[in-house]
Amino acid sequence: MSASAPAHLHKCTDATIVPGKTTIHFTITDKVGALDECLAAIKAMHISLTRIESRPSKTQELDYEFFVDFDAASSQQVLEVAKSLETISKQVHVVGTGGVAGGASSTDIPDSTPWFPRKMVDLDTFADKVLEMGEELDADHPGAKDAVYRARRSEITNIAKTYKTGQPIPHVEYTAVEKETWTTVFNKLITMFPTYACREHQYVFPLLIQNCGYGPDNIPQLDGVSKFLKDCTGFTLRPVMGLLTSRDFLNGLAFRVFHSTQYIRHHSKPLYTPEPDVCHELLGHVPLFANPDFADFSQEIGLASLGASDDDIERLATIYWFTVEFGICRQGDQLRAYGAGLLSSFGELEYCLSDKPEVRPFEPSKVAQQKYPITEYQPVYFVAESFKDAQMRVREFANSLSRPFSVRYNAYTESIEILDSKEKVLRYAQSIKTDMLTLVDALGKLA
Amino acid sequence: MSASAPAHLHKCTDATIVPGKTTIHFTITDKVGALDECLAAIKAMHISLTRIESRPSKTQELDYEFFVDFDAASSQQVLEVAKSLETISKQVHVVGTGGVAGGASSTDIPDSTPWFPRKMVDLDTFADKVLEMGEELDADHPGAKDAVYRARRSEITNIAKTYKTGQPIPHVEYTAVEKETWTTVFNKLITMFPTYACREHQYVFPLLIQNCGYGPDNIPQLDGVSKFLKDCTGFTLRPVMGLLTSRDFLNGLAFRVFHSTQYIRHHSKPLYTPEPDVCHELLGHVPLFANPDFADFSQEIGLASLGASDDDIERLATIYWFTVEFGICRQGDQLRAYGAGLLSSFGELEYCLSDKPEVRPFEPSKVAQQKYPITEYQPVYFVAESFKDAQMRVREFANSLSRPFSVRYNAYTESIEILDSKEKVLRYAQSIKTDMLTLVDALGKLA
Amino acid sequence: MSASAPAHLHKCTDATIVPGKTTIHFTITDKVGALDECLAAIKAMHISLTRIESRPSKTQELDYEFFVDFDAASSQQVLEVAKSLETISKQVHVVGTGGVAGGASSTDIPDSTPWFPRKMVDLDTFADKVLEMGEELDADHPGAKDAVYRARRSEITNIAKTYKTGQPIPHVEYTAVEKETWTTVFNKLITMFPTYACREHQYVFPLLIQNCGYGPDNIPQLDGVSKFLKDCTGFTLRPVMGLLTSRDFLNGLAFRVFHSTQYIRHHSKPLYTPEPDVCHELLGHVPLFANPDFADFSQEIGLASLGASDDDIERLATIYWFTVEFGICRQGDQLRAYGAGLLSSFGELEYCLSDKPEVRPFEPSKVAQQKYPITEYQPVYFVAESFKDAQMRVREFANSLSRPFSVRYNAYTESIEILDSKEKVLRYAQSIKTDMLTLVDALGKLA
Amino acid sequence: MSASAPAHLHKCTDATIVPGKTTIHFTITDKVGALDECLAAIKAMHISLTRIESRPSKTQELDYEFFVDFDAASSQQVLEVAKSLETISKQVHVVGTGGVAGGASSTDIPDSTPWFPRKMVDLDTFADKVLEMGEELDADHPGAKDAVYRARRSEITNIAKTYKTGQPIPHVEYTAVEKETWTTVFNKLITMFPTYACREHQYVFPLLIQNCGYGPDNIPQLDGVSKFLKDCTGFTLRPVMGLLTSRDFLNGLAFRVFHSTQYIRHHSKPLYTPEPDVCHELLGHVPLFANPDFADFSQEIGLASLGASDDDIERLATIYWFTVEFGICRQGDQLRAYGAGLLSSFGELEYCLSDKPEVRPFEPSKVAQQKYPITEYQPVYFVAESFKDAQMRVREFANSLSRPFSVRYNAYTESIEILDSKEKVLRYAQSIKTDMLTLVDALGKLA
Repeated sequence: MSASAPAHLHKCTDATIVPGKTTIHFTITDKVGALDECLAAIKAMHISLTRIESRPSKTQELDYEFFVDFDAASSQQVLEVAKSLETISKQVHVVGTGGVAGGASSTDIPDSTPWFPRKMVDLDTFADKVLEMGEELDADHPGAKDAVYRARRSEITNIAKTYKTGQPIPHVEYTAVEKETWTTVFNKLITMFPTYACREHQYVFPLLIQNCGYGPDNIPQLDGVSKFLKDCTGFTLRPVMGLLTSRDFLNGLAFRVFHSTQYIRHHSKPLYTPEPDVCHELLGHVPLFANPDFADFSQEIGLASLGASDDDIERLATIYWFTVEFGICRQGDQLRAYGAGLLSSFGELEYCLSDKPEVRPFEPSKVAQQKYPITEYQPVYFVAESFKDAQMRVREFANSLSRPFSVRYNAYTESIEILDSKEKVLRYAQSIKTDMLTLVDALGKLA
Repeated sequence: MSASAPAHLHKCTDATIVPGKTTIHFTITDKVGALDECLAAIKAMHISLTRIESRPSKTQELDYEFFVDFDAASSQQVLEVAKSLETISKQVHVVGTGGVAGGASSTDIPDSTPWFPRKMVDLDTFADKVLEMGEELDADHPGAKDAVYRARRSEITNIAKTYKTGQPIPHVEYTAVEKETWTTVFNKLITMFPTYACREHQYVFPLLIQNCGYGPDNIPQLDGVSKFLKDCTGFTLRPVMGLLTSRDFLNGLAFRVFHSTQYIRHHSKPLYTPEPDVCHELLGHVPLFANPDFADFSQEIGLASLGASDDDIERLATIYWFTVEFGICRQGDQLRAYGAGLLSSFGELEYCLSDKPEVRPFEPSKVAQQKYPITEYQPVYFVAESFKDAQMRVREFANSLSRPFSVRYNAYTESIEILDSKEKVLRYAQSIKTDMLTLVDALGKLA
Repeated sequence: MSASAPAHLHKCTDATIVPGKTTIHFTITDKVGALDECLAAIKAMHISLTRIESRPSKTQELDYEFFVDFDAASSQQVLEVAKSLETISKQVHVVGTGGVAGGASSTDIPDSTPWFPRKMVDLDTFADKVLEMGEELDADHPGAKDAVYRARRSEITNIAKTYKTGQPIPHVEYTAVEKETWTTVFNKLITMFPTYACREHQYVFPLLIQNCGYGPDNIPQLDGVSKFLKDCTGFTLRPVMGLLTSRDFLNGLAFRVFHSTQYIRHHSKPLYTPEPDVCHELLGHVPLFANPDFADFSQEIGLASLGASDDDIERLATIYWFTVEFGICRQGDQLRAYGAGLLSSFGELEYCLSDKPEVRPFEPSKVAQQKYPITEYQPVYFVAESFKDAQMRVREFANSLSRPFSVRYNAYTESIEILDSKEKVLRYAQSIKTDMLTLVDALGKLA
Repeated sequence: MSASAPAHLHKCTDATIVPGKTTIHFTITDKVGALDECLAAIKAMHISLTRIESRPSKTQELDYEFFVDFDAASSQQVLEVAKSLETISKQVHVVGTGGVAGGASSTDIPDSTPWFPRKMVDLDTFADKVLEMGEELDADHPGAKDAVYRARRSEITNIAKTYKTGQPIPHVEYTAVEKETWTTVFNKLITMFPTYACREHQYVFPLLIQNCGYGPDNIPQLDGVSKFLKDCTGFTLRPVMGLLTSRDFLNGLAFRVFHSTQYIRHHSKPLYTPEPDVCHELLGHVPLFANPDFADFSQEIGLASLGASDDDIERLATIYWFTVEFGICRQGDQLRAYGAGLLSSFGELEYCLSDKPEVRPFEPSKVAQQKYPITEYQPVYFVAESFKDAQMRVREFANSLSRPFSVRYNAYTESIEILDSKEKVLRYAQSIKTDMLTLVDALGKLA
């Protein structure tokens, strides 16, 4: 049997997803009563609104911005709504559409960019968009025919299904059988970490034991782990039902949000799982997200994925695969594993640092084109010199992609800013200026 | 009677507060078992621990940092604990002590800086440290002898007493009497805003009506308002029982947290209140915190207050008084009010823009020395040219204060970073570098 | 008689100067033969060309820029030339005109900004534009009736008259009488420096003795002093015949060029001079220009003066007067002199730090409006906290002036860049980015 | 015969150079008389001084720095001098030694870094350090046996021998024979540029014709060309006798100084030369140095070479070879030549863009290891995506080299600053801060 390591991103396509989710964003000028008129006009359109928000404009100090989300019945409807808004607004953008049923593609809409989340709460829309294994399991899943396991799994994924941004992640009382599975995995892997795991993983692991309940006899709760990560780097965990599309999954990283499963693999094969589970997340991913440079690196991939074309999403997903899941790095004169797919698979962890696989330097433009198997050990790995270096390389790669705009993440408002006007760029420059003032002051006060 | 406007910061001193709250922060080197040994050592000290956290060091990549909070019985105990930690740690800092009972002052402890919150959760410790009117009311309070009012007030302040960071702010079902008071105030003030309020206030107000339930017949809920502000600028509201010390109140602003009352003034005098209430907060403060420049300005005062000396706190509190509470600004060739104390007081709002008071330019070093009455209209106001300009001036003023270190706020981790080592300054410089890369990319993509 | 200290900038007006000097700057698109056609067209205009240069555009990579200087006979001619150029160029700017004889003012030309030097060689045009005392002397000049002195003075100013950018400054063999005057001044002042001169002056003075021939028996040569300053801060000296207009003099500072006289005062009154002379320059100005912060400060005034309105020039000249000529600064708890007018006048040097004059803080907006006598001791002085602080204040003041564009000095090309297009701002941002990369690298390598 | 293109850097080694040139740099504290004492002490050492300068310290505001250059008789003497200086100075650095005769290597001196120029005048020391063909010619040189040619060549190289920084470059009156050679080369190459030269070369060439006397009948003078380049990018030409060592040649680029020959190839073979000559410089190199991005790129290599180890010099020289001499770049979907070795060789220019040679992406770490022939066409070329991109890649590569300090070039003082102290890094950060203020101001004023 060719035991594959578990990993996010097995499938890159989102072709079969038909949400009809559409966001229209438009701007009106500040004048007496403008907001009220506008609201009345929208309500008169008889569309199925899922959000309507008015906010201060970030471009012109005295404009208002509206964000209207609705489920479009057809691309025709999107066009009609956009058109009628043009009578009241000076600027209407269809900021995205998740694809429309009935054949019409989003490219019917001029200048449309694939939909992407602008605010952290927008991640709530991902919850029920799971590619596979959301409720059913593939035939080759060790728990596929175990009705009890499947019921238990549903019970846990239901947490993810109803979870909303900002809420604490509900605790799961794991059963004795589940804990036993954890114990087996935990005990097996901790013997290997000192030899194979990267320094950053080894360094954080004792902190997780001391602060988050890691140990052979306890499955840590996502909520405590998420709070610990928030403290370290601002990353948070968010429960997920199963595999998201690559686009949704990577988009989450732009907000320093990692979609994490909460259920555990089938007890019949404790050292194997075809899908991510809580062992993979907690033992493979979590320690790395506590590292500031790795957090920067991961967010960089996420930011590049916002509004990217389908082809670019596939490139970025491949880079994600060969780094966050299957990355190895140089430390001194040795190679060590930092990818979660490796760190949670005692078989591939040993293999990847042996002389069997091929090892190449991490060059994003080449990595992005590398084919990979998802059910076997990787034949090729890419070696990062450092996370900072890898971040810079991904950024350069991202700049070479086709997206016509730049974005930044505003951690205060937990939202994405699209830097597409002089005013927004100016505001950004002002914040850098303020940072430079602080830097100079701090440097002057250093002993 | 000369009715004073309500305002935060009536008293600047915190001399009578004796919390004994102490944080010890120390660093140990990463080696096998170090974390466990250290934990055991702390537990053996028999101190009353309120928090013990181990975290990755932000200075040396492979060190661990411990944060231990405890209630010190005496300054002697603080010294003893610090001393015994020196046997296991290479660096022990008593990062603060709130003052110690029994005569010994915190200055017995070498190099001690007044305690200040490092993480947003540290604000939880402010909850029950209210200067006055927490449970009782001053004799001149219109509700001082109204037992029903006092009971209702307690009911509401109990929310603040038990509130913890990250929770939604519980809704208050306001009574008909309370709503009537609100209606009177609301209707009176909205007739004045077009003439006296600054542009920024007028611009945001319709958004609050549309998004947050502002209106003559409804007292908006803090929770919805807080979420709206978070979206606009990252500011959030946090319920408070009454007046905090100046230090605590200003420290909150460093985290973009505004401590807001939730109860309403006594119905017998709807146009008067000797203390901040929900009318003052919602109609005076909230609209301004939706403005990015004002938010930056307010946080600047907050950051300057962290660990400041008592004298500097008084200077900063005076600056706060003459800006956030009683500031006026130039807009075109007119003066307008932006201070919440003015915007929530129909008497002083008219007076402040008349030719009766004296008006001077906003120069922080002079403002900081200005005496002011708290029960009468202000005889002097200071005019800001813009919020950005005022922010830069406050920053310059802050740099002239005596604090020997620089701080920055990390919005990802919701924590304060003290930039006191080369490594931290380097990490900060790296983040500015990354921002410059994004800026250049964005500028290049501008049409 | 109340002996005034010598100082540059006695007169701020340039109303009587009628140079007719005009620069036209225009852009053509890169296409085969475009440069040749353009050159032919200009030559066909029959204007009195003083310069014609074609250069790579700094805006659009593939455009060419032309700079054509000519002496305009009338404003009518300027308009005609500009108009005919519009047929071959896509962008024609009359970048400046020094004022036109015959009544027509430069404001006839739309959008005209006062002429200013773009390249260091443009300073060559200042040489023969001296306000007064170029060849003749005022009646109250001690040498006014001494024909030998006047002839000798002319001999020396002739160096300035013919000096061109980039040349070494010719040495002057000073006579025994001249050296005696120097000896008297030198010996008198060095006894006072330890008590009255600012720290920066005292610190540099021994270096000038060791490296530049300063001493009681030798008048240092401008050329050696200029090279020393170039080494320290990039400032250079340039010989001048006498007082320039304020505009020209300040414009020079933008290039870190200080216009310095080379002759010496009349021997009959060695401790008095009504005009700048080599004692004033060498003992008063030079030591300060060796200080990096003072150099930055001086250039800041210069940059603000480029293309400024006549009113703004007068404001900046007044700031120059109260800083570079008559400035005092705080050092520890004492006041010290740093203005050259003070440091080269033993009478006013003592007076200015006594309790007789009034002393006010350095606030550019107020300084700019202060009237001052030029033939008596100053009744008011302004105190700078530091040169860096003064630089920041002047910059803020400059930003409040009416000039509609920003400039930077490019020290590589010794030219002024007008940051008036996205491309130029982008290029500037790229250079800041590169600097940030170096800064981060340097910070990382610090011990 | 396989005609090689001319190029700088044929030999990388400087093993046989024994200049004994040593610079000692030390710091003394500002106190009365310190400078004089120090000078006396140095003079008492009886060493052969070639420079002694005292300057303001760039580290501690009140220290003085001394730079003493001398010709060391032995490494022993260097140690002795350094030791005796330690009695008067608090910090003595042997900043460099060019290698010492008699077996003792520079590594006997602790912490020694290879000597490198700190100020532009230091380049004067390169003048007579020519590797080969300074006075004699190799046997395969077409002019090797032509006594008249050799005499003429010496006459011209004598200009370089005596040239000092800051002087104008003397004009050469080229003979009819020399002009004929130029005409042949010029006419041949201009027919090829439209097809093979990169856009930047083609764009600048007409400007050189119009401003610098380029044309079939005239050999342009270095002086005029140098002034033109100074205007465009700050690059200047400096006459050189022949091939410098790689170290010296690259070091010059750090100052934006390009060492250029002034003589012309032998008339017998106008389309061939085994060494750089004025055709190679003027037609190959000069047009590119007028491009700001290429100028930045070239200086980047130069900065990396300062104080680099011999191995790193070889790596950087190889990168120089494959870019500035033999680089090709992508423009749209075509490849074009930008290397001067290609642009001045009609044979290799055609060959390099044919399908015969191998073409690889420009990755400095790989380029640095590539072996290359110097007497044949290159079998491999490397393709730059853009000069900005290449600059960033070289910078990253440079940061990976072993040099323990960072440098910046200060264009005001025409000197290198070693960023090895907090104070220097702080001053640099302040200048970046000032730049950010200007950038924000300029951005705000953009239309």
